[in-house]
Amino acid sequence: MIQSPSHTKWLRLGILCLTLTLSTLCFSCNQEGKTENKTAPKIQKPVLSLSTSEANEIKKLLNTNDVLKVSFEQHKEKADKAIQNGIEVPIPKDPGGGYTHEKHKRNYGEMYSAGIAYMITADTIYSKFVTDMLLEYAKMYSKLPLHPKRKENHPAGKLFWQGLNESVWLVNSIQAYNLVSDAISIEDKKTIEDHVFKKVAEFISVDSKKTFNKIHNHGTWAVAGVGMTGYVLKDQDMIDRALYGSNKDKETGFLKQIDMLFSPEGYYSEGPYYQRYAMMPFMLFAQAIQINQPDLKIFEYRDQLLGKAVTTVLQLTDENGAFFPFNDALKEKNYLTSELIFASNIAYAYYEDSSLLPITLAHNKVSISGAGLEVAKALKNFKPKVYEKKPLLITDGKDGTDGGLALLRMPNGKKDEKLTAVFKFASQGMGHGHFDRLSIFFYDGKQEILQDYGAARFLNVESKQGGRYLPENTTWAKQTIAHNTVTIDQNSQFDGKVKAASKVSPQLLFSNLKDTKLQIVSAKEENAYKGINMQRTLALIKDSAAERPPFIIDIYAITSKEKHQYDLNFMYQGQLMDTNFEYTKESTLSELGAQNGYQHLWKLGEGKSDQNFATLTWLNQNRFYSISSIINPNSAMVFSRLGANDPNFNLRNDASYMIRENNKEDHVFVNIIEPHGNFDPKLESVQNPHSDIKNIQLIHSDDTYTIVKVIFKNEEHYTLMIVNKEHDPHKQHKITVDTIEYQWTGNYNLKTN
Amino acid sequence: MIQSPSHTKWLRLGILCLTLTLSTLCFSCNQEGKTENKTAPKIQKPVLSLSTSEANEIKKLLNTNDVLKVSFEQHKEKADKAIQNGIEVPIPKDPGGGYTHEKHKRNYGEMYSAGIAYMITADTIYSKFVTDMLLEYAKMYSKLPLHPKRKENHPAGKLFWQGLNESVWLVNSIQAYNLVSDAISIEDKKTIEDHVFKKVAEFISVDSKKTFNKIHNHGTWAVAGVGMTGYVLKDQDMIDRALYGSNKDKETGFLKQIDMLFSPEGYYSEGPYYQRYAMMPFMLFAQAIQINQPDLKIFEYRDQLLGKAVTTVLQLTDENGAFFPFNDALKEKNYLTSELIFASNIAYAYYEDSSLLPITLAHNKVSISGAGLEVAKALKNFKPKVYEKKPLLITDGKDGTDGGLALLRMPNGKKDEKLTAVFKFASQGMGHGHFDRLSIFFYDGKQEILQDYGAARFLNVESKQGGRYLPENTTWAKQTIAHNTVTIDQNSQFDGKVKAASKVSPQLLFSNLKDTKLQIVSAKEENAYKGINMQRTLALIKDSAAERPPFIIDIYAITSKEKHQYDLNFMYQGQLMDTNFEYTKESTLSELGAQNGYQHLWKLGEGKSDQNFATLTWLNQNRFYSISSIINPNSAMVFSRLGANDPNFNLRNDASYMIRENNKEDHVFVNIIEPHGNFDPKLESVQNPHSDIKNIQLIHSDDTYTIVKVIFKNEEHYTLMIVNKEHDPHKQHKITVDTIEYQWTGNYNLKTN
Repeated sequence: MIQSPSHTKWLRLGILCLTLTLSTLCFSCNQEGKTENKTAPKIQKPVLSLSTSEANEIKKLLNTNDVLKVSFEQHKEKADKAIQNGIEVPIPKDPGGGYTHEKHKRNYGEMYSAGIAYMITADTIYSKFVTDMLLEYAKMYSKLPLHPKRKENHPAGKLFWQGLNESVWLVNSIQAYNLVSDAISIEDKKTIEDHVFKKVAEFISVDSKKTFNKIHNHGTWAVAGVGMTGYVLKDQDMIDRALYGSNKDKETGFLKQIDMLFSPEGYYSEGPYYQRYAMMPFMLFAQAIQINQPDLKIFEYRDQLLGKAVTTVLQLTDENGAFFPFNDALKEKNYLTSELIFASNIAYAYYEDSSLLPITLAHNKVSISGAGLEVAKALKNFKPKVYEKKPLLITDGKDGTDGGLALLRMPNGKKDEKLTAVFKFASQGMGHGHFDRLSIFFYDGKQEILQDYGAARFLNVESKQGGRYLPENTTWAKQTIAHNTVTIDQNSQFDGKVKAASKVSPQLLFSNLKDTKLQIVSAKEENAYKGINMQRTLALIKDSAAERPPFIIDIYAITSKEKHQYDLNFMYQGQLMDTNFEYTKESTLSELGAQNGYQHLWKLGEGKSDQNFATLTWLNQNRFYSISSIINPNSAMVFSRLGANDPNFNLRNDASYMIRENNKEDHVFVNIIEPHGNFDPKLESVQNPHSDIKNIQLIHSDDTYTIVKVIFKNEEHYTLMIVNKEHDPHKQHKITVDTIEYQWTGNYNLKTN
Repeated sequence: MIQSPSHTKWLRLGILCLTLTLSTLCFSCNQEGKTENKTAPKIQKPVLSLSTSEANEIKKLLNTNDVLKVSFEQHKEKADKAIQNGIEVPIPKDPGGGYTHEKHKRNYGEMYSAGIAYMITADTIYSKFVTDMLLEYAKMYSKLPLHPKRKENHPAGKLFWQGLNESVWLVNSIQAYNLVSDAISIEDKKTIEDHVFKKVAEFISVDSKKTFNKIHNHGTWAVAGVGMTGYVLKDQDMIDRALYGSNKDKETGFLKQIDMLFSPEGYYSEGPYYQRYAMMPFMLFAQAIQINQPDLKIFEYRDQLLGKAVTTVLQLTDENGAFFPFNDALKEKNYLTSELIFASNIAYAYYEDSSLLPITLAHNKVSISGAGLEVAKALKNFKPKVYEKKPLLITDGKDGTDGGLALLRMPNGKKDEKLTAVFKFASQGMGHGHFDRLSIFFYDGKQEILQDYGAARFLNVESKQGGRYLPENTTWAKQTIAHNTVTIDQNSQFDGKVKAASKVSPQLLFSNLKDTKLQIVSAKEENAYKGINMQRTLALIKDSAAERPPFIIDIYAITSKEKHQYDLNFMYQGQLMDTNFEYTKESTLSELGAQNGYQHLWKLGEGKSDQNFATLTWLNQNRFYSISSIINPNSAMVFSRLGANDPNFNLRNDASYMIRENNKEDHVFVNIIEPHGNFDPKLESVQNPHSDIKNIQLIHSDDTYTIVKVIFKNEEHYTLMIVNKEHDPHKQHKITVDTIEYQWTGNYNLKTN
C-alpha cells in the first residue's frame, strides 16, 4: 500500500494496515506455537471489522459527525430496547415469518447491535446481554434436531427451517461475540465457543457439507460464517476450509466462489437481487481476510473482482435504487438494504472509490466499522450528487462468454433522469433464473414502462405460504410469456427445464454503447426452441436535432424451417389511451391458454388491422408511450390481463399486449418504442398524445442483413442496417434493394434522412 | 384596518390600503364625471393585482428573494419563448385538447406572463407582444360564430367549444392588458377595448346571460372576467352587473354566488376538486374589488367567507396534497395548481393567516402581485413545517343544514402522518355529484386504503373523447356501487337521478371530533331509496394504552318494511393477503350485474362462512389492513374487479370486496377497519400480518339504540353505544341486554374493557 503523507486518508489506511499486520503476525505466532513476542503491542481486538482504535475514533466523532451519530444510535437504541425486553431463546418451531423464526433473526441482530454499543460505550450492560444470550444458545444448540419445518430437497437448519438462515445467524453472532469477547470470563468463553460456535460451524461446514461446498450464495454465507468464526476462535483449519473448501483443494470454498460466481465485470449469475444479498458475506468475509491475512490480497483478487461486483450490482438498479427485477426478484428491494451498506462501505474503504459516495449518502447510515468510519469522514465534506448510472454491457459467465446484459441509457430530457432499456441475454442464473432470454424492459426516469414481473413472493408474509416463493412464481413469473420476449407455440423456452437451460447461453453478436446518439446491442439465442434461431437487436436512438426523447428500434428475427405460432408479449405499465386499429373486447373472460403461464392471463380482447403497422399508446404518469409494430392482415393484437387461475390472489393484475403471428416459418418482429408528449394535470396541458410514427418498413431481411426504415410524421427518416452473421467491425457491406444501394462498414449503420 | 407601527406587515398593508383608497377615489371621480383633483398623485395603474409600486419592490427584491426570482423568471421565460415563437391567433376549430383549443389557452397564459414581464422589466418588447396579440384578436373576434365543436345543452364559447374557457380567457387577458396598458397608444387601446374586451364581455354577460347569472362556478368565472374588465375599462355598469347580476337586483351575481355556493364553513357544494377551480375567480375578483371598491369590504363579507373557503379546500386534501376525490374529481389534482397559488397568496395577504405558509412554501412559487409579494417576504424567514390537517366537521348547504362531510384524523404512529377517514353525507353537489351518500374513504399517511374512484376522465387527452368526461363516468363513477356505501337491489341512490337527489340531503345526527381517543360521526339518509332509512356511524378509536394504530368501528344500519338485497362494497387498494373464510374463484369471468355500475365489475369469486365475522386482510405498501365484518351463514363475500363493458379501456382495473345480504328487511352492517403490522422489505421483517380481532358482537340494535362490542385477541374490549333518535348531548340512557346494564349520558358512549 502506497503511503503519501500529504494524503491523510492514505495515512490512516496505512496505520490501519500496520495495525492489522501486527495483529496478524502475533496471531500467526500463537497459531504456530512459536515464542510470543512480548514487546509487540497488545493485540488489537476484535479481529473482524472494528478495531478498538477505530471504535475510539468513532466515539470521538459522534458529536460532530451526524451520520456516525445516527448510525450508532440506531444500534444503541436497538440494544437498549432488547435489554429492556429481556432475553428469549425459544425452541425453534415456526417456518419463515413465524414467531420463532423472526425471534432468532431478531436475536442475532440485537446481539450485533449490543456488541457495537459495547465497543463504543464500554458499558458492560451490553457485553453481558450478548454473553447471556449466547449462554442461552449454548444450553440449547447441541441438543437441537433438524428444524421441524424443514422442506424436502432444501438444506435444513436447526434454528431455522433452512440452513441459509443458520449461516446468516453465524455471520452476525460471531461478530457480536468478537466485539464483546474482552468482557467475557474465560469459563463463559469456553462454554460459548464449545457449545455454540464450534457446534454451529460444525453443523454448517461438516453436517451440511454439501451446501458448504456449493458454488452458490448459500455456500458463500456458509463459508463466511465459518471462516469468520475461524479467525475469532483462532482455528486455521476452519479458516482454510472456508477459503479453499472442505478438502482444502481449492475446488470449492471462498476463492473458488469468487472465480466461478462472477463474470469478469463482477456480474453474479443469479441476477442483482441475489447479488445484493450475496455481496454481504463476500464483502464481510473479505474484510475479515484482509484484516487477518492481508498477504492474501483478497481485494486485489481476480483483478479487483469484489470491487467490480459492488459497482455492477449498484449499476443494475433503476432510478428508485431498486434492483432490476429479473429472475426471482422482489421489486421492493433497493440499494438501501443493510447488505449494501456493509458492502459499499467496505468497497469505499478498500478501493477508495469516491463514485460510491452518493450511494452511501443515500443510505443515511454507515456500518459501525473501520470501513464505515472512512465513509462517514468522507461524507462530511461531500457535496450531494446523483449516483451516475452509465450505459453498460455486462457479460455473464466466469469467462464472460455466457451472454450478458446490456443497459442502454440516455437522458430523457428531465434533470438527472434517464431512459433505460435493459436487454437480457444472460445465462439461466441457476434455480432462480427465469425463461426470459432476449427479453427487454424499459424505464423512463423512475417509472417502469415495460415491466419484468419479478418474483411471485411476499417475503416473510406468513399468510402467503410462509413468505416463500409462491406456486405462481413457477407457473407464471418464470415462464417465457411473463416477459417481454417471444413465446413460441405457447411453450416456454427449454420447455421450462432449468437443467437444459443451464447448459447453454445466448451469445452477444455486437454492441456499441459509447455513441451519444445511438446505443445498439444484438444477441442471439439458438437453443431455447428446437430448430429455431432467434436474434434480437435493440437500438436506442436520439437525434439531437429532434426535440423528441430517444426512441427504440427493436428487431426480433426468428428463423425456422417449420411453421410455428410466435407471440411477442409486452407487459406495458399504465393506462391504455389509444390504438390505430379496431379491436373487440370479450364479454366474458377466459384464460388465454392452457399452460406455461398462459393459464394466468385473462384474454380481454383482440384486434386486427389492414394497415402495415399497429400502434398502441398508453399513459404512465406524465408521459405517453407508444409501441408501433409492423404487422400484416393475419397478425393478431391480443390484450390480456393477469389474474386467471390464481386461487389465492397471489398475482398482481397487470396488463399485457401481444403481437401474435400464426403459421410462420421465418418472421421478423419490428417494433418502435417511443416515449412522447406530456400530460400535466397541474397545468392542465397535454402535448403530443399521439405517436409520431408515420410508417415503418422492413426493407430487407435475410440471414445476412436486416434493414429497417422508420419514417416520422415530420418526415425524419431513420434507416437501420444490421449484419446478421460474420460480425466484424471493419468489414464493408453493400446491398441493393429496389434500386437503392445500402453501403456501410461494420456490424450496423444508422442513416438519418 | 388597524395600524401598528411596531408591526411592519401591518404598516405595509396600511400603505397598500392607502394607495388603493386614493386610486379608487380618483377612479370614482372619473367615473362620476366630476372635476378631477389635479393635485392627487398619479393613479397607480394597473388596477387588478399588481401596482407599479409593488412591481418596483418586487424588482428590488429579485436578487435576494429566491421564490420571487423563480416565480418571476418562469413568467419571463414563458414570455421570451412566446415572443420568439411569434404570434398566432388561429380560427377556432378544435375541441378540448385539440390544437386551436390549446393554442388559445396558451395565448392568454403567454399574454399574462408578458404583462408581468413588462411590469417588472419595463421592456416594451413585452407590452408590444400583448398589444400585437390583442390586435390580432381584435381583427377576428367580432366576426366569430359560436364554436363549431360546441355541444348541445352545454353553453358554447366562440374561441373555445365551451363558454367556460371563454370566461377564463377573459380573466387572464384583461389582466395582461391592464398590466401593459400604459404602454399602448390611445388608438390601439380603443381598438382593443372596442373589438376585444367589450365584445367578449358582451358575449359572456349578454349573449350568454343564462350562464352569467348562474349560481355555479361557470357563473363565477363569467362575473369575474366581466367585473375585472369593468374595473379596467372603468365601466361601472359592467362592474355592477358582475357584482349584483344582470338585473342588478342582487338575485344573481358575485355576492349572491358567495351567499349560495358555500356553506358557513366555506365548503363549495360541488366538492373540493371544483372548489379549487372556483376559488381562483372568487379570489381574483375579490382582490380586484378590494383594490377598487374597498368600501365593499369583500373579504369580510359573510363573516370572512372567502378566507374560510380557502382554508376548507386546503383541508379537503390528502397528505399528498391531492383533493379528496369525491364527486367528479381527477385524482392527480393537488393544491400545487396555479389556482391555489393565486387563492392562497391572496388569502394570506388579506387575512394574514400564517397557517397558510406551509402551502405557499410547497408551491415554491408565488403570484407576481401585491399578495404574492407579501407571501414571498413572509417565506424569507419561515421555518418549514407540515401544513396542519385537522379533524373537521364541514357542513354543506348555504345554511349548513344540508348534511356535510366529516374528516376523522388521528396520528398513525409515523412522523407527521395521520390516518384519515372521510365520511360523506353531503348534498348532491349539482351535476358533478355522485350517488355516494353515507360513503366513506380511508387513507393511511399518503396511501389510499379504501378509495373513492374519482372521475372517469383524462383531462384534455384528445384520444379519450377530447378530454371530456367519459361515458364510464356516468355508467360507473357516479353510481352508488362505485363507492364504499350500501347499494340496494343493485340500484343506485335516487335511481341515479340528479334532480330528485338535489332536492334532499342526508342529515347529521351527532358528532364529536374533539376527543383524542375517539372521533365519532353519525348521519342518516332517508330519501335515497324509497321506504328505506339508513344510518351510518363512523368512529375512529385510539386507546393510548394499546400500541396498535387507531381503528374504525363502522355501523351501517338499514330499516325497511320490505325485503331487499343490501350490498356493502369496499374498494380496497392493495394486494389481498388473507381471509378467514373459504371462497371459490370463477374459472371464467362475467359481469356482476346488468346495470347501475354492476355491469363494469367482473365477478372474481365468492365466499361463505359459518363464523360470525368475516375478515379480509390486504397489504398496501408497508402496512396490513383488515376489514372484519359481522356476517351470518347467508352472507356472501363477493370479490370483483373493475373493467367489464369497457370497450375503450377507459377504466382502471381496481379491486373491490363486498358483503352482500339477501332478502333482508332491517339489517345492521358492522365492520372493524384496522391498520396493523408492518412489512419492511429493507429489513426483511414482517410484524402483525394478521388482524387482531377476536370477535365482534352486535349486542343490541333497534330504532333507539345500537350497541356493538369489539374484542381483540389480547382481550381488550371496546363497547360502543349509540343513540339512534332524539339526539341530545345531555340525555341519560339506560338499557339492559342479557342482564348487563348499559348506562350513559349523551348520544354515544365508548366503554373500554
